[in-house]
Amino acid sequence: MSATEEAMNRRIVLARRPEGEPGVEDFRLEAGPVPEPGPGEMLCRTLYLSVDPYMRGRMNAGPSYAPSVGLGDVMVGGSVSRVLASRLEGYVPGDLVAGFNGWQDYALSDGTRIRRVDPELAPPPAFLGALGMTGLTAYVGLFDIADPQPGETVAVAAAAGAVGSMVVQLATLRGCRVVAIAGSPAKCGYLREVLGADVALDYHDPNFPETLEAACPQGIDVYFENVGGAVFEAVLPLLNIGARVPVCGQIAHYNDSGNPLPGPDSLPRLMMWVLGRRLRMQGFIVGDHLDRLPDFVREMGGWLREGRIRHYEDIVDGLENAPAAFIDMLRGGNLGKRLIRVVPEDAAGA
Amino acid sequence: MSATEEAMNRRIVLARRPEGEPGVEDFRLEAGPVPEPGPGEMLCRTLYLSVDPYMRGRMNAGPSYAPSVGLGDVMVGGSVSRVLASRLEGYVPGDLVAGFNGWQDYALSDGTRIRRVDPELAPPPAFLGALGMTGLTAYVGLFDIADPQPGETVAVAAAAGAVGSMVVQLATLRGCRVVAIAGSPAKCGYLREVLGADVALDYHDPNFPETLEAACPQGIDVYFENVGGAVFEAVLPLLNIGARVPVCGQIAHYNDSGNPLPGPDSLPRLMMWVLGRRLRMQGFIVGDHLDRLPDFVREMGGWLREGRIRHYEDIVDGLENAPAAFIDMLRGGNLGKRLIRVVPEDAAGA
Repeated sequence: MSATEEAMNRRIVLARRPEGEPGVEDFRLEAGPVPEPGPGEMLCRTLYLSVDPYMRGRMNAGPSYAPSVGLGDVMVGGSVSRVLASRLEGYVPGDLVAGFNGWQDYALSDGTRIRRVDPELAPPPAFLGALGMTGLTAYVGLFDIADPQPGETVAVAAAAGAVGSMVVQLATLRGCRVVAIAGSPAKCGYLREVLGADVALDYHDPNFPETLEAACPQGIDVYFENVGGAVFEAVLPLLNIGARVPVCGQIAHYNDSGNPLPGPDSLPRLMMWVLGRRLRMQGFIVGDHLDRLPDFVREMGGWLREGRIRHYEDIVDGLENAPAAFIDMLRGGNLGKRLIRVVPEDAAGA
Repeated sequence: MSATEEAMNRRIVLARRPEGEPGVEDFRLEAGPVPEPGPGEMLCRTLYLSVDPYMRGRMNAGPSYAPSVGLGDVMVGGSVSRVLASRLEGYVPGDLVAGFNGWQDYALSDGTRIRRVDPELAPPPAFLGALGMTGLTAYVGLFDIADPQPGETVAVAAAAGAVGSMVVQLATLRGCRVVAIAGSPAKCGYLREVLGADVALDYHDPNFPETLEAACPQGIDVYFENVGGAVFEAVLPLLNIGARVPVCGQIAHYNDSGNPLPGPDSLPRLMMWVLGRRLRMQGFIVGDHLDRLPDFVREMGGWLREGRIRHYEDIVDGLENAPAAFIDMLRGGNLGKRLIRVVPEDAAGA
């Protein structure tokens, strides 16, 4: 990379608040000078960016479960970076760190919300997926909230996505029967053949509710929910007494306006199921569970090393492609954890 | 009571399955001989019957959270009885017992699901309310499932009913701020002045959602749900992050057909709230928690003796009035625990 190019920091900012599905025109690529670290700061070169469904909520003005991104502000997001210059004690140039530096080439950090990336444990991109927030989401939601027992049936929505693909494997490790639900025959094949799901079903199948029922002869004890919509409707009647429903996403509804949708109203029926089947539905957000990070890294790191958990990153090259890659991910175009490679690891100055 | 009258066992049976709201014509009063206890059985004279919302579900043919009552079968229900004759070890004539003898004057029992009634602890009717299943429902739902902390805001639906009136008092004992929601000014006055609710609101007030919001300046940490419908809709936006919603009833929906109601569909919005506010919604049924009965009786018995919990039974005389009293209770006509006094305690032969 030439000195001229290095002198610019490209940033993707929120240009407009989308109504419904976002488009690339809702983002704008800007460029500015590379910032200089002050005392107690370090300059980080972004290697990988995470694009995640929750970012859709942050594009809205209204309250989401996380603060809104301001118009003209850099899009938020997890990152793996290399330290280029440091006036922060404990960090030296060449260090690899994971943090939340946003959609830009360079960022300053004072060490807040920064983790070290140990490449002995796993390749750096895994720190945004299997060993990152999506892996921790799967770990906390499945083990702490749902706590499935060996032999129980665990149904997983968006099973080929970043969180779902981890849930499928963790539930299999626990000795559960795993029914994976995804959006294409290719994803279903991957779930069965690579990730070891007992059954994988395409929710586009017009007979999906019947197929799901046939695939769950003992009913469903845990439904890992991050989708909503028609998949949830099909799962609901199959939930066993005492079933647990950790809710970590509602990707089918992120583009909704926030107002109630056209009827019929299925809420009263849901509540009757909650009562009659003694369901426990529990929303959670990984940021509330960062105290579990040490246990998670130790356990998940071990499983990755032993090859008991596979991680797959779906990598798109180029910061400029982040908006399109994000929109495509919201539509389910990804297999595993969708990442942006901003610059090749060996090209980033160490 | 004359020997002739004693020789007949009046029973109220299910004559017809109601569609929507039940009517008295859905029940039938029959009479037959008083049964004779065989070996290992005892003959019980019903003193008090409990009428409860869950019985509406058992009148349907389809699956409820409890088995359906067959057409022509005696209506199910909790009872306090006096033992008239016993061939069952451990029971002698004159003993008081609580069980599930149904809507009839006499019943045989082999001791299954029978508890002893200790009149030193509380008057016999309390064993169907404060010291019975409705009290245990309040105790388990509030303490085991919601676990409110002192200073938290607890909102209680159907607060003047059998379960709600106990929840209000238990939450007050725990040091919570209690917002009681009920269906008439008289009930609200009772909740404030007798049961000690911090605030009591009538959900018929056209400004109820605004009044509720004003009454909950710190939001709502626990919503004890047994109603559904418009009350739930008003509570939902006020729930704090991490709020707990134990669900023990949905009385607003017991007469629904089971099919989705006219739109708009508020289910997706609910799920977005569950996610964004990290809500825990948990259905429960007291029958799953009978292992808590000893702790409950010890603690609640103590509070009743000390006068820290008040119990109020709303008593209707006469087995023949049970259907009308049940229907009226479904409409909210009761204050506290609705019971049927089948025969005065001192008139039942001992």
